[in-house]
Amino acid sequence: MTLIKQMQAPDEFVGFYLIKELEVKQTNTTPAKDFMDIVLCDASGQISAKMWDVSAADKETFFPMTLVKVQGIIQTYRDKLQVKIGRLRKALPEDAIQMTDFIRSAPISPVDLIHTINQVLESIANPTIKSIVSFCVTKVADKLNHYPAAKTHHHAYFAGLAYHIVRMLEIGEFICKQRPFLNADLIKAGIILHDIAKPEEMIAQLGIVSDYSLQGKLLGHISMASNWITEAAIHEGIDLQSDVVIGLQHIVLSHHNLPEWGSPVLPQLPEAVALHYIDSMDAKLQMVEDTLLTTPETEAWTPMIRGLENKAIYRLNL
Amino acid sequence: MTLIKQMQAPDEFVGFYLIKELEVKQTNTTPAKDFMDIVLCDASGQISAKMWDVSAADKETFFPMTLVKVQGIIQTYRDKLQVKIGRLRKALPEDAIQMTDFIRSAPISPVDLIHTINQVLESIANPTIKSIVSFCVTKVADKLNHYPAAKTHHHAYFAGLAYHIVRMLEIGEFICKQRPFLNADLIKAGIILHDIAKPEEMIAQLGIVSDYSLQGKLLGHISMASNWITEAAIHEGIDLQSDVVIGLQHIVLSHHNLPEWGSPVLPQLPEAVALHYIDSMDAKLQMVEDTLLTTPETEAWTPMIRGLENKAIYRLNL
Amino acid sequence: MTLIKQMQAPDEFVGFYLIKELEVKQTNTTPAKDFMDIVLCDASGQISAKMWDVSAADKETFFPMTLVKVQGIIQTYRDKLQVKIGRLRKALPEDAIQMTDFIRSAPISPVDLIHTINQVLESIANPTIKSIVSFCVTKVADKLNHYPAAKTHHHAYFAGLAYHIVRMLEIGEFICKQRPFLNADLIKAGIILHDIAKPEEMIAQLGIVSDYSLQGKLLGHISMASNWITEAAIHEGIDLQSDVVIGLQHIVLSHHNLPEWGSPVLPQLPEAVALHYIDSMDAKLQMVEDTLLTTPETEAWTPMIRGLENKAIYRLNL
Amino acid sequence: MTLIKQMQAPDEFVGFYLIKELEVKQTNTTPAKDFMDIVLCDASGQISAKMWDVSAADKETFFPMTLVKVQGIIQTYRDKLQVKIGRLRKALPEDAIQMTDFIRSAPISPVDLIHTINQVLESIANPTIKSIVSFCVTKVADKLNHYPAAKTHHHAYFAGLAYHIVRMLEIGEFICKQRPFLNADLIKAGIILHDIAKPEEMIAQLGIVSDYSLQGKLLGHISMASNWITEAAIHEGIDLQSDVVIGLQHIVLSHHNLPEWGSPVLPQLPEAVALHYIDSMDAKLQMVEDTLLTTPETEAWTPMIRGLENKAIYRLNL
Amino acid sequence: MTLIKQMQAPDEFVGFYLIKELEVKQTNTTPAKDFMDIVLCDASGQISAKMWDVSAADKETFFPMTLVKVQGIIQTYRDKLQVKIGRLRKALPEDAIQMTDFIRSAPISPVDLIHTINQVLESIANPTIKSIVSFCVTKVADKLNHYPAAKTHHHAYFAGLAYHIVRMLEIGEFICKQRPFLNADLIKAGIILHDIAKPEEMIAQLGIVSDYSLQGKLLGHISMASNWITEAAIHEGIDLQSDVVIGLQHIVLSHHNLPEWGSPVLPQLPEAVALHYIDSMDAKLQMVEDTLLTTPETEAWTPMIRGLENKAIYRLNL
Amino acid sequence: MTLIKQMQAPDEFVGFYLIKELEVKQTNTTPAKDFMDIVLCDASGQISAKMWDVSAADKETFFPMTLVKVQGIIQTYRDKLQVKIGRLRKALPEDAIQMTDFIRSAPISPVDLIHTINQVLESIANPTIKSIVSFCVTKVADKLNHYPAAKTHHHAYFAGLAYHIVRMLEIGEFICKQRPFLNADLIKAGIILHDIAKPEEMIAQLGIVSDYSLQGKLLGHISMASNWITEAAIHEGIDLQSDVVIGLQHIVLSHHNLPEWGSPVLPQLPEAVALHYIDSMDAKLQMVEDTLLTTPETEAWTPMIRGLENKAIYRLNL
Repeated sequence: MTLIKQMQAPDEFVGFYLIKELEVKQTNTTPAKDFMDIVLCDASGQISAKMWDVSAADKETFFPMTLVKVQGIIQTYRDKLQVKIGRLRKALPEDAIQMTDFIRSAPISPVDLIHTINQVLESIANPTIKSIVSFCVTKVADKLNHYPAAKTHHHAYFAGLAYHIVRMLEIGEFICKQRPFLNADLIKAGIILHDIAKPEEMIAQLGIVSDYSLQGKLLGHISMASNWITEAAIHEGIDLQSDVVIGLQHIVLSHHNLPEWGSPVLPQLPEAVALHYIDSMDAKLQMVEDTLLTTPETEAWTPMIRGLENKAIYRLNL
Repeated sequence: MTLIKQMQAPDEFVGFYLIKELEVKQTNTTPAKDFMDIVLCDASGQISAKMWDVSAADKETFFPMTLVKVQGIIQTYRDKLQVKIGRLRKALPEDAIQMTDFIRSAPISPVDLIHTINQVLESIANPTIKSIVSFCVTKVADKLNHYPAAKTHHHAYFAGLAYHIVRMLEIGEFICKQRPFLNADLIKAGIILHDIAKPEEMIAQLGIVSDYSLQGKLLGHISMASNWITEAAIHEGIDLQSDVVIGLQHIVLSHHNLPEWGSPVLPQLPEAVALHYIDSMDAKLQMVEDTLLTTPETEAWTPMIRGLENKAIYRLNL
Repeated sequence: MTLIKQMQAPDEFVGFYLIKELEVKQTNTTPAKDFMDIVLCDASGQISAKMWDVSAADKETFFPMTLVKVQGIIQTYRDKLQVKIGRLRKALPEDAIQMTDFIRSAPISPVDLIHTINQVLESIANPTIKSIVSFCVTKVADKLNHYPAAKTHHHAYFAGLAYHIVRMLEIGEFICKQRPFLNADLIKAGIILHDIAKPEEMIAQLGIVSDYSLQGKLLGHISMASNWITEAAIHEGIDLQSDVVIGLQHIVLSHHNLPEWGSPVLPQLPEAVALHYIDSMDAKLQMVEDTLLTTPETEAWTPMIRGLENKAIYRLNL
Repeated sequence: MTLIKQMQAPDEFVGFYLIKELEVKQTNTTPAKDFMDIVLCDASGQISAKMWDVSAADKETFFPMTLVKVQGIIQTYRDKLQVKIGRLRKALPEDAIQMTDFIRSAPISPVDLIHTINQVLESIANPTIKSIVSFCVTKVADKLNHYPAAKTHHHAYFAGLAYHIVRMLEIGEFICKQRPFLNADLIKAGIILHDIAKPEEMIAQLGIVSDYSLQGKLLGHISMASNWITEAAIHEGIDLQSDVVIGLQHIVLSHHNLPEWGSPVLPQLPEAVALHYIDSMDAKLQMVEDTLLTTPETEAWTPMIRGLENKAIYRLNL
Repeated sequence: MTLIKQMQAPDEFVGFYLIKELEVKQTNTTPAKDFMDIVLCDASGQISAKMWDVSAADKETFFPMTLVKVQGIIQTYRDKLQVKIGRLRKALPEDAIQMTDFIRSAPISPVDLIHTINQVLESIANPTIKSIVSFCVTKVADKLNHYPAAKTHHHAYFAGLAYHIVRMLEIGEFICKQRPFLNADLIKAGIILHDIAKPEEMIAQLGIVSDYSLQGKLLGHISMASNWITEAAIHEGIDLQSDVVIGLQHIVLSHHNLPEWGSPVLPQLPEAVALHYIDSMDAKLQMVEDTLLTTPETEAWTPMIRGLENKAIYRLNL
Repeated sequence: MTLIKQMQAPDEFVGFYLIKELEVKQTNTTPAKDFMDIVLCDASGQISAKMWDVSAADKETFFPMTLVKVQGIIQTYRDKLQVKIGRLRKALPEDAIQMTDFIRSAPISPVDLIHTINQVLESIANPTIKSIVSFCVTKVADKLNHYPAAKTHHHAYFAGLAYHIVRMLEIGEFICKQRPFLNADLIKAGIILHDIAKPEEMIAQLGIVSDYSLQGKLLGHISMASNWITEAAIHEGIDLQSDVVIGLQHIVLSHHNLPEWGSPVLPQLPEAVALHYIDSMDAKLQMVEDTLLTTPETEAWTPMIRGLENKAIYRLNL
């Protein structure tokens, strides 16, 4: 079976893939005919595909998030690869394939990621901080093990958010050792809480974001998380005016660093400054790493990366 | 008694004023001598003053927020008027003067302002909205009747915040009549809530802000108000995910319109768009009106106004 | 007859509409065939349409601004509705339909709008101001009763400019009552003059702007209006250096507030500050109101609005 | 006599200078004493000066724009040179000195500058353009021979504006020869008109700007010049809608190139593009040249130049 | 033979042209068919073209940079002209046409341009400056006689870079005469060196840039030229810390004036200030002139010009 | 002996300090008297000081970088502490104090820092990279062991630059372990080279920068380092067009990430992206840590920190 990342024009192929997006459109011909404009994906990447001559039955059969068997040929269209589908059918039980094999996922299993997050949560020494973080994690417990960290920007795959948190916790652990004046509890709490409202900000399935929620659009995950800390404090009987509550809210509110990047206040605690750079470093390097992984190794340059000021990354020959 | 606004060099005068700021400093002479660097104010404005040859007793007697009787002469120093104090004593009971006569205040009495705000609050038809607004107003009940709306920017005087709210409510009432598609309850609630956390963001006495609070610096009044709505909803048993709660939080969070002006989200409800312009129009025109009032009528140009891009305002001769 | 706003795929329909735009294009097929790419409109909105298999006679018959009878079906193309035209003919006298029923118009009749503007003009107490405003209004008398206020931004329909002026006059009247230090004559004059050169800046028919004029491109309506005030003053024998002339020119030149928004000077008169906010408030709320009106009520979100930083507006469920 | 540019601490000197600015201030001592805070200038530069122990007669004798004989010593104060005046008297007829010897002037005489401008004006072939330019030049005829081009930015000295125009005309002549597609009449007219309203925008004496005029503040010289072209056209009976009038207004309005630099429209004629660069090149290089001239030759670096992004200029050793 | 600039729909024509770009694509029809999406050019301009019904032989025959004979008709597609190719064949020896007749070139021959550059180089009096400039020119000797100055921005044609340098040298000569305080050697050197690394920054053939080189992307021509001056100095035995080396590197590094325009340092030498404006003036006026030349004379407005803030240029009727 | 960080008004004290800055000025009195305006420092911080009644001998005795014994009293002047010096003498050999005890230094000894840098340099596996890094380090060998990393921004003390490099190498080692796709040689080289030209960009003594060098002003350390890599490659016989040379130059040129922050190109190698965040994280956290250290522990808020958008840092009470 041909992995999408390895497809090259003008190959013919047969294989199983997941329909990530599907839209029925009509040709300009007279009479107009229906065709399906599809995005196929597997764990290695995604590719756009066209299926011409679509029957009424086809339109009742194929939808986004359907696993399918595809026979097709690979063409070049406007400098990009594209599949022309010859035959298409739904995957059957006897094909013995699983949905999770066809989506991009974090390289560590969700169970292990959640385990690590919980261990770090348990290691927070300050009981007030721990109880607030715990409340917020519980709120999204059923989503934290599979949600992506963003729609397209970075860690946009199954369990991407938990993976982002775990990698940031590693950096946080290092930086607290290197600079002991930082409060490790605040760093741990800040990392776990900074994007904790994202599962309620976005609507996602199998790591693929289809839209933002109403709260996501009208409030944004930064203000939502601040509100959740208020909610946690009330629930746990913690003084809303205490330095712990204000401090945690500040760290969350300021983690995008500048107003034009979405933060209503600038970092004014050492741990808030640290959190911003831990977050940026992890997000930007993950973008680079993921883009290199999904770029065919024959290409010296990756596609342009929006989160890196639309610059492409080059593979140096040393 | 000479009003500060009417002082002209090189007048001599005797009168009662309030010491707004006072610092004991030392001259460059040898031996150095103590002198007092003072800001005097009355309801018409403020002026800087120097008192040379300060005794040990003087330093024990005079402090900020003290009412005093001053004999002095008015001089010009670096293009600005300045008082050289000849004699200075504390005001006595028999002088029969009151603190409130010497501070700048809103032109409507606090009692009337609070009465108007409460009346509008009562007129909110939607009981959920009303209970949230009521909770937040109660939270700052003891400060809303005297706090300023800002440190220096606009409405920076006794009861300035309540006055700003009341004037905005007048504009809000007009615009709801002119454009019935706007929801009057949301407009009323938005106006009352938009700056409701300012009394906890700033530390003020007699309408004069001395500093920002810790919450003010680390969270800012916009995020604080959003948190208060969460608190109100929990207290009143309202669903945190309801459109009312999200809508009110959105209106508060977006009222500065752009990220670089402090809003983490942009207005996405009709009433949020309206609120931003009601707020701007009232604040800007009040800056103009107040600056004209405190500028001697002999001056064609006011001083520069920071909130108006550092532009001065001209009195046209029609 | 199906209103455009109410069209839904895959309805079939017959009705009268106005051809707002029309271009003959060619298909990619061999041999290529002509088809017509059309924008149909009625008073409720507009929709794109395709007519395949176009004859030579068709190309001689159908042009922009033609009223037509259409038989078609509604399809979805790239997430947007689109009409596939089956039959098309010009409207006939016996169809008894009128052009003005098929264009978007201000909700108040042009006659009433002009009447209101003239009444306010008459009420200007200062005769010099009145004569300048009167001269400028007369200059565009034949266009003011039907021109839109902009190409697409806001009030982009028949008599949109006059409607914008009238609504601003209402706000102006309110604000002059609320803040008597404002000069009502200048507010009235500023509102009437601020966009008075727009009918010469744009080329429009039936409220639809097809292009900008040479003056519009090379000078812009703001500088044009300033020049007109010079012209008016010379014509009326008014001193070009008088405060009235300079004041009116200033109010017009500064009404976009900031250089990057098109104003070469910043507001430095109280009335200039007021005018900017009256203009903004009316333009922005009209964008919101018009977009809500042309968005099907089944949609919770409107399309994105360019003049509101590309944000969509949400219909809250209270 | 010591030129100001050549003064060095701790020299003593006697010489004639012009009082450019003078303010009577008071010392912090008790009793306070009057002293005079003065700016002295000659053709080579300017320096701040203090005169202590000022008598009542002194205060009646010395004012800005007075020629004086000074005996003083040169001191260093906050890294800058400053004169401590020992003796001071007004210049007498028998001193046989002239005001114009003590002010900075363009290096070409006003008579020659005006002669050159008139010659170029005469050489404009298009009679309509010539009559408009001629009208505007006549309007400021009594100021064009001595006004500076700016308050401090560039060409801020006697006849600086005329000098700026003449030097730009030289560049304009060259560029029209190099690129014949440019219309020489428009280039000539644009250069003469682009800053023609500056003498009415600023209030100046002997090349020293003391303030901006009301028109200068409320309209700015760019819009003023556009209005003047309207006035000229009416006076000369030229169609206000003709390409000549619109073209000249456009060239003037767009010569600052970008809105944030003060131009309400961007250049859209070849000659408007050219004019912007001719103007910039002349203004920037003159700033460099003038700053080098007034910087002592012993200094490798000039002071920072505001018009060059606050950068200093270095004298390279080749 | 019809020049591309003179083509008008719906003309038919036969003529020779150069294939500038060519891509084989597929139609949406079933079965999909190959067609060729082509850009044809001649010395007067370029036009997009389609050839339907492409054979396997065609795909082996036609490539970019091939001279061809075309029979076609001119159509309008989306407001732009486009050729529908009827017949197509490669140019034959007996057609007696030359590649260089079909590309846009500087209006002066490369031989003359290089001669002029060498003459100016020879006239540099300072031997150290001359040897550095000479080293850098030699480095690109085989490309300087035909490379364009940019991909699309300005002087984007055969020998465009040399032409840009020669025209700038003319301005430089003028400005050194007008302002003798400028060092003519530095002006000459700065002009020749400022874009000297462009032939290594871009990959071009016949004046047409197909891509940027690795160095171009990772270093940019400004830093590359600075490195070359280091290389030249080492090669010529010149002190790397001398004012000449630092001065030349500074002039090259600062010639884009502002960081956001690509210069890591701002101009701090008189000649660096001059160079920036000489470069801007020549580049911007050339954009205007070239765009006017390639715009049919029947058009009053040119297309929008990216390098002029996306503004179009108007042909005034005087 | 009172550490400067512990001084409080109105203490009297005797102790040894270093004169960091000294200027002789004159009082406004008549006759004017000389006084000395001094900045005293020790390892804990710095404070401004005045010495009145200065003798001629004093002026010959005291200069910047002199160790002195001071008897003084601490006063408050404009909200800041200031020393009024009573008695002052130079430190004597028998005082047995050392210069290095009175300056701020990195918390690790220069010997150890250089040792660490050399060890890492030795561990670079790629011999070409190693030889280039080695060449550049050797170039500044006599300065790298004591130079600060900046004038005031961050690591502005003795051996601050080496300390910055060593701490970044620790982060670099961590991140290469966490993300093995990063090339450790490039990370090591990038960290050592990124600021390697700073010792030639600035002029410093004992960790205190007095000015920027000519190269620093005209080229900047980023372009200087790029030039040095060219120099190194020529010296070591490495191909200037090799990926190693271009890659190292790119990493250095892009490490400020954005043009407005000083980088002429944006990061386009994975290691360039990483380097920017390693540099930022270390610089920002060091600013926070150093400011907290020099802020008296009785203060909840530090002074504002320019490199953190002028925000102060708060000490949270957990």
